[in-house]
Amino acid sequence: MLIESIEKSLKTSVHHPELKKIMDYAVLPAGKLFRPKLIEAIALDLGPVLTEDHLHLASAIETHHAYTLVHDDLPSMDNDMYRRGKLSTHAAFGEWKAILAGDALLIHSFNEINKIQNSQLKLIHNFFGWANGAKGLILGQFLDLGAQGKANLNQIVRIHELKTARLIQAAIIGSYLIARPYKFQEMKDYFLLGNVIGVSFQLLDDLGELTEKTVSEHELEINPFLLYPDETLEVLTKKLDQLYSILKKQKLVHTTAMMKEYLDKNKKNFTENSEILLGHFPEQFKEKMANWITSFSSL
Amino acid sequence: MLIESIEKSLKTSVHHPELKKIMDYAVLPAGKLFRPKLIEAIALDLGPVLTEDHLHLASAIETHHAYTLVHDDLPSMDNDMYRRGKLSTHAAFGEWKAILAGDALLIHSFNEINKIQNSQLKLIHNFFGWANGAKGLILGQFLDLGAQGKANLNQIVRIHELKTARLIQAAIIGSYLIARPYKFQEMKDYFLLGNVIGVSFQLLDDLGELTEKTVSEHELEINPFLLYPDETLEVLTKKLDQLYSILKKQKLVHTTAMMKEYLDKNKKNFTENSEILLGHFPEQFKEKMANWITSFSSL
Repeated sequence: MLIESIEKSLKTSVHHPELKKIMDYAVLPAGKLFRPKLIEAIALDLGPVLTEDHLHLASAIETHHAYTLVHDDLPSMDNDMYRRGKLSTHAAFGEWKAILAGDALLIHSFNEINKIQNSQLKLIHNFFGWANGAKGLILGQFLDLGAQGKANLNQIVRIHELKTARLIQAAIIGSYLIARPYKFQEMKDYFLLGNVIGVSFQLLDDLGELTEKTVSEHELEINPFLLYPDETLEVLTKKLDQLYSILKKQKLVHTTAMMKEYLDKNKKNFTENSEILLGHFPEQFKEKMANWITSFSSL
Repeated sequence: MLIESIEKSLKTSVHHPELKKIMDYAVLPAGKLFRPKLIEAIALDLGPVLTEDHLHLASAIETHHAYTLVHDDLPSMDNDMYRRGKLSTHAAFGEWKAILAGDALLIHSFNEINKIQNSQLKLIHNFFGWANGAKGLILGQFLDLGAQGKANLNQIVRIHELKTARLIQAAIIGSYLIARPYKFQEMKDYFLLGNVIGVSFQLLDDLGELTEKTVSEHELEINPFLLYPDETLEVLTKKLDQLYSILKKQKLVHTTAMMKEYLDKNKKNFTENSEILLGHFPEQFKEKMANWITSFSSL
């Protein structure tokens, strides 16, 4: 249902065959659909059903995500030739077409937000625009690309908060506002929920990079677990604790199940590849890391 | 007032000093402020005053315009090093910063739209998103950059309609909807008004290029007046006739005065440089063109 509604939204918003092809290419086949699934889980927890409004929100978030990837991959940005096992959009179609298709997806995402019928639309739009703009996701991209040499852990976490967590917060807050009238304390909890999911999953990704046999030079220079093992593990543990506590407090059954699945997958990966993973760390840190792998994911 | 509200809107929407500097650079000092002034003229004609909502609309339209210029100027697009008498944004700050600042201005424009308090906000947002997205302005950029060899006049006019007129339509329709409840027939008139202003002013710009002593190779290849003199003059005359007739029908006094100023400026330029201008055309067309210059701008 999520993927069909994303496809459908693209079908109606662009008619020119080549431009449509490029926009479709950037979005489909979809990745893990992490953000749309999160919207769905929150919807089922609060709803209790997934509504048309949620589907518009999910399309908005996923196409917005796709635009950020298209622009991130550009030669002057990360210069990535591959994405999701195929050529990145600019590598497949050329640079100017990728820039324009990215712009079109960005506008498309706002148009999908505007299709939401809920009376709190203005608030949802506000949050979506704030989270993704010059104080949010784009600032994260800006700081990430502008980082000179080794960033300190605070800077790395800040970039994760802006570049990764903000869009997840927009997904969660949007889904919450579609289901419930705004309440300050609840809103704060869902805001924090998006932050801790974004940062902890990004840090788990960083750790996952170290389960690969070959780790790139670049990764060795920027991976926070290699730069600041103790402190990074501390931040991750704290974020996961906050995650568990909000899920419990707000009684989010479906969301908890979804988080458990992702965390279990990570635990399995860390456990199966623990030798490679631990090999990256100094002796005095290995036992701590091994213990952490055994104990984590207590959902 | 228009320029102050644009400056103010940027001040509150971005805090990071360097990102703010780049976004400001792309927007300020402003160009002719043609679109904001048009919003103001329509507001005074219908309002009868310029409201906060109009100022948000004007900021949205002008910052959106700026984002399109930043991305248009990029090396893989038009590759322009200069804009408004200074280095273009990517030439001054580098490519990735220009791409991100452009994205941030695009998002900013939607955030400004969302500040409009008018009950027809959803309709205004809808039109704004449609006009600027994959069926509108971006399609115009796409067709413009993708044009292989000489385009025919229909294609040139279509690109002017999409790339230039759509944003002008968004300005006019937005200003109309802030002042008046939506009526199908009126909306159609304002829609057409934006189209004819966009296309006719773009064609006047094309003609204005030929009043310069040196015309670039590129201009010689794409200028519709050189490629199709009779037909282009016919389209321009028709669009101007439609312009006069809508202005009269809707009794738009301020808007008429604004149009008159721009048309008079063009007429003055054509008259003063008629020798250069006429020199570009074959003998059999010169008299027709000279007569047209004398007769046009009857507002």
